[in-house]
Amino acid sequence: MSESKALAFIGLGVMGYPMAGHLQKAGHEVTVFNRNTDKARQWAEEYGGQWATTPAQAAANATMVFSCVGNDDDLRAVMLGEDGVLRGLAPAAIVVDHTTTSAEVAREVAGLLAAHGNGFIDAPVSGGQAGAINGQLTVMCGGRDDIYRQVTGVVAAYAGTIKWLGDTGAGQLAKMVNQICIAGLVQGLAEGLHFAQAADLDVAAVVEVISQGAAQSWQMNNRHQTMINGQYDHGFAVDWMRKDLAYVLEEARRNGSHLPVTSLVDQFYSEVQSLGGGRWDTSSLLARLEHFRK
Amino acid sequence: MSESKALAFIGLGVMGYPMAGHLQKAGHEVTVFNRNTDKARQWAEEYGGQWATTPAQAAANATMVFSCVGNDDDLRAVMLGEDGVLRGLAPAAIVVDHTTTSAEVAREVAGLLAAHGNGFIDAPVSGGQAGAINGQLTVMCGGRDDIYRQVTGVVAAYAGTIKWLGDTGAGQLAKMVNQICIAGLVQGLAEGLHFAQAADLDVAAVVEVISQGAAQSWQMNNRHQTMINGQYDHGFAVDWMRKDLAYVLEEARRNGSHLPVTSLVDQFYSEVQSLGGGRWDTSSLLARLEHFRK
Repeated sequence: MSESKALAFIGLGVMGYPMAGHLQKAGHEVTVFNRNTDKARQWAEEYGGQWATTPAQAAANATMVFSCVGNDDDLRAVMLGEDGVLRGLAPAAIVVDHTTTSAEVAREVAGLLAAHGNGFIDAPVSGGQAGAINGQLTVMCGGRDDIYRQVTGVVAAYAGTIKWLGDTGAGQLAKMVNQICIAGLVQGLAEGLHFAQAADLDVAAVVEVISQGAAQSWQMNNRHQTMINGQYDHGFAVDWMRKDLAYVLEEARRNGSHLPVTSLVDQFYSEVQSLGGGRWDTSSLLARLEHFRK
Repeated sequence: MSESKALAFIGLGVMGYPMAGHLQKAGHEVTVFNRNTDKARQWAEEYGGQWATTPAQAAANATMVFSCVGNDDDLRAVMLGEDGVLRGLAPAAIVVDHTTTSAEVAREVAGLLAAHGNGFIDAPVSGGQAGAINGQLTVMCGGRDDIYRQVTGVVAAYAGTIKWLGDTGAGQLAKMVNQICIAGLVQGLAEGLHFAQAADLDVAAVVEVISQGAAQSWQMNNRHQTMINGQYDHGFAVDWMRKDLAYVLEEARRNGSHLPVTSLVDQFYSEVQSLGGGRWDTSSLLARLEHFRK
């Protein structure tokens, strides 16, 4: 465990709430900020930390500021806004952002912070709510190598794996690769299960066999049963996936890569939203296929 | 090990050759047939078995006949043709077909054999050439339950897993589910790696991180390095995948399932063929994306 530090945590959603809790439990003095102050008050009571009424106030005494908010605009607001982190940040304090954003906003925020002598690490996570609660998140980092090395001991409070992947934005770009792989993979799995159901196969028996070979995936192992059951009230929401895929497709336009299936699956998720499934798990691509069943 | 039996094996391709070898090594008396008789003679020398000049002759004394040929037409030819297995088959002998075919031809052949008092098991495999050589294939079976139970002890000579999945055709349908899952999955992986290269990321480092979570797959674990290297002279050939996907898409038309990404990826494989990649591994979907790089 690293020595006790004064830290700030901005954003107490399903991820941030337990992540900030792990920092406090690791012996740090954490001050949180959340737009909904009831949640911040509840957090402070649960973990014995402090809460502030603005990001600037939360950041005032911190040597490191962590954030986990919704999207690019939310990040700009809490960092660069009127009462944003930048207004309160101590000299040489470091900002670690766990939001999944564009690589561009990571570079923008990093640049503004650097002008004030503050370091920035873009550090999106995977592992979901369960990973946040168990402290087993995977953290993908971009930014200056020397700054990265200063934060790993603290981030370890909620990380199973933490890895530096390159300059500012590299964490976000790696997270995009993750989402691209998942999009095609889940649609393939959904089509497989949909076909199996249409063919009147014992779907669980088929999965038991094919999961031992070249068709195996984490999604197959962990999602096939809920997909067969039509259960989607868990996991990673379609609305969030679409937000991430918007950043992916924007970045692909910039770097000239071709993502035909990713962009098609993004459209399928748009249809899932139309079916009322914005809060459903990403595996609900099967529900869309079943909806169109003759 | 089961007691020694007189067996026949039809088709000594990269799969059938070692499979027939495992049967002979398990103590059975195997007679092989292959269109190219040089290969049959070579096999007989290597394993000390017999070879025949027609499928009917190979089957003449066998209690079980195994086949592993190219496609529906090949299966019809070796089973139902002029000198086909059906002409030579002993009463009550069982045919086990390891070819990946349509479910329809499996039902057609099973029906004709049943009329002669012979059992039939459709039993496509996965695990590739390595699985055939190591005797660790996964075998997906359809057919009468009581007939299935008679063959498992023999098939075990080259199987790591053997599973009964339902009536005649169920083995083929399960294999189709396998190929559907792989098509979407590999395209997703290819798009992810393509994007990572375009974004100038350290692709191996990114894969190391994301393979620990929800994007993980057998393909990611076993193919990312060769994909990054642009190495495709191994694995499962695009030409064979297209053959399998043709049966998949035909069956989907019949059972009313929707396979938008599978059918798109089939088209992508058609483009890989146009690029001269018919013999490349299925992971060469990345080569297609890189071909279109600006």
